[in-house]
Amino acid sequence: MFRKLLIANRGEIAVRIERACAEIGIRSVAIYTEPDRFALHVKRADEAYFIGDDPLAGYLDARRLVDLARETGCDAVHPGYGFLAESAEFAALCAEAGIAFIGPDAKVIARMTDKITSKRLMREAGVPVTLGGLVELSSCEEALIQAEDIGYPVMLKPSTGGGGRGIRRCESPAQLRHAWQRVIAEANNAFGSEAVFLEKCIVDAQHIEVQVLADRHGGVIHLFERDCSIQRHTRKLLEIAPCPRLTPEQRAYVGTLAVRAAQVAGYENAGTVEFLVRGNEIYFMEMNSRIQVEHTVTEAVTGVDIVREQIRIAAGHKLSFRQEDIRHHGYALEFRINAEDPRNDFLPSFGRITRYYAPGGPGVRTDTAIYTGYQIPPYFGTLCLKLIVWGMTWDETLNRGIRALNDMRLQGIKTNAPLFEAILRHPDFRRGDFDTGFLTAHPELLNYSVKRNPEEVALVIAAAIAAHAGL
Amino acid sequence: MFRKLLIANRGEIAVRIERACAEIGIRSVAIYTEPDRFALHVKRADEAYFIGDDPLAGYLDARRLVDLARETGCDAVHPGYGFLAESAEFAALCAEAGIAFIGPDAKVIARMTDKITSKRLMREAGVPVTLGGLVELSSCEEALIQAEDIGYPVMLKPSTGGGGRGIRRCESPAQLRHAWQRVIAEANNAFGSEAVFLEKCIVDAQHIEVQVLADRHGGVIHLFERDCSIQRHTRKLLEIAPCPRLTPEQRAYVGTLAVRAAQVAGYENAGTVEFLVRGNEIYFMEMNSRIQVEHTVTEAVTGVDIVREQIRIAAGHKLSFRQEDIRHHGYALEFRINAEDPRNDFLPSFGRITRYYAPGGPGVRTDTAIYTGYQIPPYFGTLCLKLIVWGMTWDETLNRGIRALNDMRLQGIKTNAPLFEAILRHPDFRRGDFDTGFLTAHPELLNYSVKRNPEEVALVIAAAIAAHAGL
Repeated sequence: MFRKLLIANRGEIAVRIERACAEIGIRSVAIYTEPDRFALHVKRADEAYFIGDDPLAGYLDARRLVDLARETGCDAVHPGYGFLAESAEFAALCAEAGIAFIGPDAKVIARMTDKITSKRLMREAGVPVTLGGLVELSSCEEALIQAEDIGYPVMLKPSTGGGGRGIRRCESPAQLRHAWQRVIAEANNAFGSEAVFLEKCIVDAQHIEVQVLADRHGGVIHLFERDCSIQRHTRKLLEIAPCPRLTPEQRAYVGTLAVRAAQVAGYENAGTVEFLVRGNEIYFMEMNSRIQVEHTVTEAVTGVDIVREQIRIAAGHKLSFRQEDIRHHGYALEFRINAEDPRNDFLPSFGRITRYYAPGGPGVRTDTAIYTGYQIPPYFGTLCLKLIVWGMTWDETLNRGIRALNDMRLQGIKTNAPLFEAILRHPDFRRGDFDTGFLTAHPELLNYSVKRNPEEVALVIAAAIAAHAGL
Repeated sequence: MFRKLLIANRGEIAVRIERACAEIGIRSVAIYTEPDRFALHVKRADEAYFIGDDPLAGYLDARRLVDLARETGCDAVHPGYGFLAESAEFAALCAEAGIAFIGPDAKVIARMTDKITSKRLMREAGVPVTLGGLVELSSCEEALIQAEDIGYPVMLKPSTGGGGRGIRRCESPAQLRHAWQRVIAEANNAFGSEAVFLEKCIVDAQHIEVQVLADRHGGVIHLFERDCSIQRHTRKLLEIAPCPRLTPEQRAYVGTLAVRAAQVAGYENAGTVEFLVRGNEIYFMEMNSRIQVEHTVTEAVTGVDIVREQIRIAAGHKLSFRQEDIRHHGYALEFRINAEDPRNDFLPSFGRITRYYAPGGPGVRTDTAIYTGYQIPPYFGTLCLKLIVWGMTWDETLNRGIRALNDMRLQGIKTNAPLFEAILRHPDFRRGDFDTGFLTAHPELLNYSVKRNPEEVALVIAAAIAAHAGL
């Protein structure tokens, strides 16, 4: 097993990896840029190294991080998600330096992060794929011709990247023309590549993804699926395991497809195979070669510590489980509590956490890097807390979700937390009747009234009294 | 289902019950005495009523609480544990007032809280019991004769009560003579009865207890067992589910015995049947007719929300599960983090919580009523936080336990938290080789060195610098 592991990341996922290291008995090494001086991932690591004043540059400097890992005696690097997690270059540099990269081989990353290549590969292996998406587009004219061919609506997508960024749905040639330059610019901006492609848009589909684990001894298993259909502008907000609407036959089928995809890709470590599902139609979308934000719901229903398995796999161990050892129990939901103001078009709401009290009791998990007094820096994403609930039945899980959301105290910033209660109370959602169009079809959910915390109200009153009394 | 429920308790168990109410959709009513004005169970309830300046009297005033429940329109009362939880009088008063008491019938409580009666009942039903304990003792002389008869060591016990209070182990007539007046005084003090009895002491046994659920339709099931052998002076410190040393056959046997005990007792609601187990010998000890502190570990391994089931049963529902629906997965540990100083003979360490940060991540649950800024009142017990960890294997659970203990920040008071890390690192404990004598056999565990929190050290240094600089 490794002795010392550098975490090439920050925030909650860095804390998550530190926890796995502590449980295995590996020394954890954190990195931080200037705005992260007081970050929890720095306080909780066994060692922490400053990597520069620029908020972001240090976290993206593959060569420097490999040097740091070597200089500090690390024998492994975990990239988390985002930043360098899907950088084939980073994986290759680690390999050259003789440091284990916790993820697949550089070649596999390159293959799977290129969505066109991976889609071709899957089509050849007999995994069903959506229409289109097999060539990189060289001009808007070419895009228009291809869109006519496969039929509107179409999705225009960067061929690399993830997190739903840069993707635009186009209903007509006019919209496609309008989107063209923007998507290219966003692709370039976010992922450093202007390559884009388009594919048939599967409307009213569910976004289903299967968690897979593969070791270097030929072992490949899946940990069942997650439903990530609840999205706003193609960004996931709430994830569910397992998908409440899948039949056991569909579940077995997507599981088998995912294992086949991982085998075809020559995959090693933890990965996610994403599908669009509409009724009995199932289409491969992409494969993510990293730990995902929402791995927590799979952990909740299967009991498997996925980060621990990642580390074990990278150390050359065989999988701890056979497929038949994996069962799923009950349901889990993950709420991505973001520092943003849903009443103000979800603009970021960075600031100081004046009070954070974690929800507790049965079936509740939190993953976060915030704490009371923490100042959320404005340079990174808005995700500030993952609240995960588990229940034995779908109804129990929903009720527990609402309870846990109300249990939590998070003050000083605005968050999207009240949105989740509105979703969980919606009869369609409770019936399991939702797809990727859910939030668009129910814009009223974004117009909830924010409940005032009674303690907050008391403070306001006290302040008013103090003001009157001239205190 | 009930509309409104009065919680005749305080602290973490009141918060636990409020959470169950919120999930079911029942309005919760809290009570509080003067020192509990700022208690979490008051803040989190839907309504809260002041019941007097005396710290304890209000929580123990059965008649007044029933009146309050009626006046506030409650149709149910949950007694939690301690206080009136095993008061047959309270249960009877609730029944008279037409308010559902969440627990067994008053007659069953009276029968089961009298340890002599319950032991007789079990012996008649063919449940194996320890030698002795079938008569109330009228004098020390009688005790000495009985002790000679069954042989030393013996346990001298109050015939009512719980929580391990008042129990003395006597190795010789001299020790029995010495203990006699003390046990009577403590029994009187704690439980208002001077009735005591003695029974054969089963040395080096494991304390195993089985969680049962029984509805009023004849349904009785068990949720497997907990190992509560890790005790200090007969008070539980760390509980485990399931018992790592029980064979599947032993597990099935104690489960069957517990169900039989519940049936014989005419039991309804959640209860616990306690056994002493040594090798293949199994002895019934007592039955607790209430929710127990350590119900959490059973919830963790079975997924059953026991408090929710309690409420459903009291509302006349059938059990949500059949015996064959209940499975156990992995292992769970509960650490009773007490506000006490293990370096100073476990004396209470009440005071203000200057900082509390809950541990998080996979497999971690907290149940507590503390928060940053909370002043622990000195009138109640020392239990301030239950930390529960779950893992798929015994080793994973132990490592997760150590990780979660280190994850937590709890400052301003002294606690026994470091003791648990010492226990979890002990090779005998890791091998599953422990019984009720474990802490007595390993006194060195109580002499651990308290690790200084690095942030605390930094503060000390900063304070020293400030002092030098004359700030």
